Amino acid sequence: MKAALVDDAGRLHSLLRIPTPRDGQFPGDVVVAKVAALTENYRAEYPGCAIESIGLVVPGLVDEEAGIGRMSANLGWRDYPFGEHLTRVTGLPVAFGHDVSIAGEAEMRAGAGRGLRDVVVMVIGTGIAGAVFCEGQRVRAGGYAGEIGHAEVPGGTECPCGAFGCLETIGSAGAITRRYNALSGNAAAGAKAVLTAALSGDRHAAQVWEDAVNALAFSICQLTAILGTEAVILGGGLAQAGPALVEPLQSRVESRLSFLRAPRILTTVLGQDAGLIGAGLRARDLVARP
Amino acid sequence: MKAALVDDAGRLHSLLRIPTPRDGQFPGDVVVAKVAALTENYRAEYPGCAIESIGLVVPGLVDEEAGIGRMSANLGWRDYPFGEHLTRVTGLPVAFGHDVSIAGEAEMRAGAGRGLRDVVVMVIGTGIAGAVFCEGQRVRAGGYAGEIGHAEVPGGTECPCGAFGCLETIGSAGAITRRYNALSGNAAAGAKAVLTAALSGDRHAAQVWEDAVNALAFSICQLTAILGTEAVILGGGLAQAGPALVEPLQSRVESRLSFLRAPRILTTVLGQDAGLIGAGLRARDLVARP
Repeated sequence: MKAALVDDAGRLHSLLRIPTPRDGQFPGDVVVAKVAALTENYRAEYPGCAIESIGLVVPGLVDEEAGIGRMSANLGWRDYPFGEHLTRVTGLPVAFGHDVSIAGEAEMRAGAGRGLRDVVVMVIGTGIAGAVFCEGQRVRAGGYAGEIGHAEVPGGTECPCGAFGCLETIGSAGAITRRYNALSGNAAAGAKAVLTAALSGDRHAAQVWEDAVNALAFSICQLTAILGTEAVILGGGLAQAGPALVEPLQSRVESRLSFLRAPRILTTVLGQDAGLIGAGLRARDLVARP
Repeated sequence: MKAALVDDAGRLHSLLRIPTPRDGQFPGDVVVAKVAALTENYRAEYPGCAIESIGLVVPGLVDEEAGIGRMSANLGWRDYPFGEHLTRVTGLPVAFGHDVSIAGEAEMRAGAGRGLRDVVVMVIGTGIAGAVFCEGQRVRAGGYAGEIGHAEVPGGTECPCGAFGCLETIGSAGAITRRYNALSGNAAAGAKAVLTAALSGDRHAAQVWEDAVNALAFSICQLTAILGTEAVILGGGLAQAGPALVEPLQSRVESRLSFLRAPRILTTVLGQDAGLIGAGLRARDLVARP
């Protein structure tokens, strides 16, 4: 869980990283209580500053309009009215959203997507999630859009979600680490270590990295054919590989496409704080003076 | 080429099917001249009726806002200003669009998509083209969206477009016929004959049909994961197979998906005239009185 106070100019102050509070019975309530407590702390820390609104983004299936967290497999809530409860406890208007979607929005408004219209933001970490923008508007489909990590790709394997061949079983940072360790018998700590091994000639590492790039290129070509996507912005842990990821991915995408316009592969500008910045932008929208 | 006069109630009158005029040197001009001549014919045939606007839809890559046919591989034009030239010759306002996209729009406004918001219309004939709707709006991406026939699928083969594995090399009516004839040594005239053979126990026909259904299901699952598509509307020649196509496709899509919401598979209500009806709706929009 991350939190910050956002000022008029969009700057983050007193950024905190704390463990997400969990409760088997009241998984939504403990989050609301923690956000309320953080709000009080910021008020105490900045007595001259009147906090006007709260932006809260959560993972899982989210109904943004209704302010409801429909489902989080990891954190456990079902149909929990975050917006309503947080407003009741704090007295402040609340902008509520889906974490990856709002991070994508921030990237479009203030990051690598500025000035672009047909874009997919892919966050590649343990899993893979996406935010899809068409003509500058985010596609929501009631919260069902953007599950790019669970689109099938050749070479994909059984996925904990219950389907077979999902992109995130081969193209995610988690999959890269897991597959390399299984193939090599080593115990790489993460995808970064696998990339380092690949660059120094480890053939298992090179193979696993190549498989991931091919799988990601496959999915990006699907986006291109279906949506005419002009740019794909990579975020999450894997994007930190930078050119070692972007360059082979760009060339693989271009070589697979014939007459379709190849999207540019970009990396996040806002980085790991994109969700926080997006929540701040949304919260400011609520109280914006024209 | 099809043409009709559309009345206030949206009914088609004097529907014509004629060969598309072709000219190696002036491929756009001969189409404009033909549409102008048809307009004169309708005026002569309905002397009491004041034609107020023209809707023209064409294949290929289209810039609808600018009224320009960017490219048609089959018909040969490049950057031809259909809207401007047709208005100059006829004196009428012209609504110009892409054939499959406008057929999809008609299906959304007056056909199987009424009341739905996140929909893909797939026209499956010789090739496969699509119109993608998110939150009720058609995704254009400058004319690059909807090339679903050129998204890669497992089992796909070399495509005349230059890419490999395109959906239309295995899932189109054209591919079904071609693959069956190559496998069986028979000379089926079309996908309908292949379906008939499959239903009467021909194992080559059954295999080819099964491959097509699997490929289409793969692509529909991609749409679902990326866009949260709630319904897929099938049109074109292959959709005439009706339940023999829809039922296996629906069950294949559902069995491939885990937590994602399976879209309903529907067939076109407007049928082969959807493009004509959509062109009429667009032409009426131009002169609509509030």
